[in-house]
Amino acid sequence: MSIAMKHLLCCFSLAILPTTLARAMDDPLPSWNEGSAKQAVVEFVGRVTTAGRPEFVPSPERIAVFDNDGTLWAEQPFYFQLAFALDRVKALAPQHPEWKTKEPFASLLKGNLKGALAGGERAIVQIVMATHVGMTSEEFERIVKDWVDTARHPKTKRLYTEMVYQPMLELLSYLRDNGFKTFIVSGGGQEFMRPWAERVYGIPPEQVIGSHNELKFELRNGKPVLIREPKIALIDDKAGKPVGIQRFIGRRPIAAFGNSDGDLQMLQWTMAGDGARFALLVHHTDSEREWAYDRVSHIGKLDWALDEANTKDWTVVDMKRDWNRVFPFDQ
Amino acid sequence: MSIAMKHLLCCFSLAILPTTLARAMDDPLPSWNEGSAKQAVVEFVGRVTTAGRPEFVPSPERIAVFDNDGTLWAEQPFYFQLAFALDRVKALAPQHPEWKTKEPFASLLKGNLKGALAGGERAIVQIVMATHVGMTSEEFERIVKDWVDTARHPKTKRLYTEMVYQPMLELLSYLRDNGFKTFIVSGGGQEFMRPWAERVYGIPPEQVIGSHNELKFELRNGKPVLIREPKIALIDDKAGKPVGIQRFIGRRPIAAFGNSDGDLQMLQWTMAGDGARFALLVHHTDSEREWAYDRVSHIGKLDWALDEANTKDWTVVDMKRDWNRVFPFDQ
Repeated sequence: MSIAMKHLLCCFSLAILPTTLARAMDDPLPSWNEGSAKQAVVEFVGRVTTAGRPEFVPSPERIAVFDNDGTLWAEQPFYFQLAFALDRVKALAPQHPEWKTKEPFASLLKGNLKGALAGGERAIVQIVMATHVGMTSEEFERIVKDWVDTARHPKTKRLYTEMVYQPMLELLSYLRDNGFKTFIVSGGGQEFMRPWAERVYGIPPEQVIGSHNELKFELRNGKPVLIREPKIALIDDKAGKPVGIQRFIGRRPIAAFGNSDGDLQMLQWTMAGDGARFALLVHHTDSEREWAYDRVSHIGKLDWALDEANTKDWTVVDMKRDWNRVFPFDQ
Repeated sequence: MSIAMKHLLCCFSLAILPTTLARAMDDPLPSWNEGSAKQAVVEFVGRVTTAGRPEFVPSPERIAVFDNDGTLWAEQPFYFQLAFALDRVKALAPQHPEWKTKEPFASLLKGNLKGALAGGERAIVQIVMATHVGMTSEEFERIVKDWVDTARHPKTKRLYTEMVYQPMLELLSYLRDNGFKTFIVSGGGQEFMRPWAERVYGIPPEQVIGSHNELKFELRNGKPVLIREPKIALIDDKAGKPVGIQRFIGRRPIAAFGNSDGDLQMLQWTMAGDGARFALLVHHTDSEREWAYDRVSHIGKLDWALDEANTKDWTVVDMKRDWNRVFPFDQ
């Protein structure tokens, strides 16, 4: 609640408090406009949390899974983890004189992102391997923490961790207040998200599932360390998401939230269980407050999943229409 | 508390309730004899949970990890999961006429366990692969549930899930009552433990970490399933335990409980962190109520870890001396 709103409230006596204002005060989802999306969320939570109703679900089974990029925080003009990797390439360049003539690093260091990524998946793997492995998991955590504390988004100049969706923060809290356990299930790096997910989303490290590399246990001068190895253990995207869910959670979620085709299998897996189920897609429709993109986007492509949502009556959030506030820093 | 004890209590008025009995009523660890092991546990919990003390640890960081075989339930005369696999071989034999002449199955089906296991690790892998993969994760869960509901231990004739250690059940509850989050970190199969760990130990599936196979997402007649693949993703034993901990929990435990050399690296990893730390080994010393084995045992070998515990002042439970009750069914 804003200070202005609090001030306003002080001017009313309880006797004349308008009903609409009283409702707003109680509303756990104030950044969501009244409409079918908000109504679907609230109605679902009511169905599974009301004892005695046929679709009641005991609290330990109220598992809700959230994609991260494009669902909880923004992903334009490119995935924030790629911004991290590019900053790391710059920071590490003095130790790698060979990068001056070696692609994709040479292009990157000249500020030519498009040229660097012309190498496709191979170029991305090279960038990730050069910046994400070889150190201990503790060293990597420190590097990520330092970056999220200082790096700023090219367009908004905000910290990346400020570019989270206020309505989704409210939704996370609302679900937890109703006995849900909230998990991230992201194609992004598990150890890239864990250092800040608890502070920003209220989601502890053990509930953050993402793509991850192999780790190797070693004793270094008698001190045990875990080394991040240059070998991928799980790509937690597309068909990898149900695998990550089963491996890490061990039971099927009853609610899933995504925004792209990379989330399709997670939503399918969630919806295929018995009893009440909920699937929601965030559709990026607001080119002014955020970005507008879907079927032909290189990042966060939403095509097949949108078709399936329409066929199967999943909930689709129209960001422009359904959210009265996008980022916490929006007025 | 036994019915006899409850009856006894009714005969006392509060005024004459003996102090020792009052203490016993408040004691969260009644199956632990007074002694250095119990004292070490209680003292550690006091240190990390008392606000204002220098070693206070906030509740979300109170991570405690427990080995399963030999630490939470028994593991003699052989791992219970092996008993499960052998029962599955018998159940599946009619579908595999070739097993009559193929080792290790031929020996197994003749009741010659020693002969079957003469093939060493290769034989065990063959038995596991023949019984643990190829089905969906849901089918496997059903198979495990049916087995734990009916199979009985060869010596005690009890259900395997009754052969859990009463003092460890009390310890799990005691830690959780003090704001700890309890995890299993076992060399045993993750999906073998999850179907019953919540009911038996109060540990939900998402806090059960174990060895696990790759899974494959498929649509079968439009229905999504996860197939258990014949490829190991993690052997969560020895140096694999810190890997499993970092991958699944993402922060270092402050307390670790094990019983064998397979737990050594987990205890090392736990103890190498900053602040108050606790490591405990269950030493199987009671040949009457349970089994007595350590340095030369083929199952649950405790040799190097015992040396390290002695050097580093880790807590060692002498089952015979420290526990007044082993199994819940003991009087």
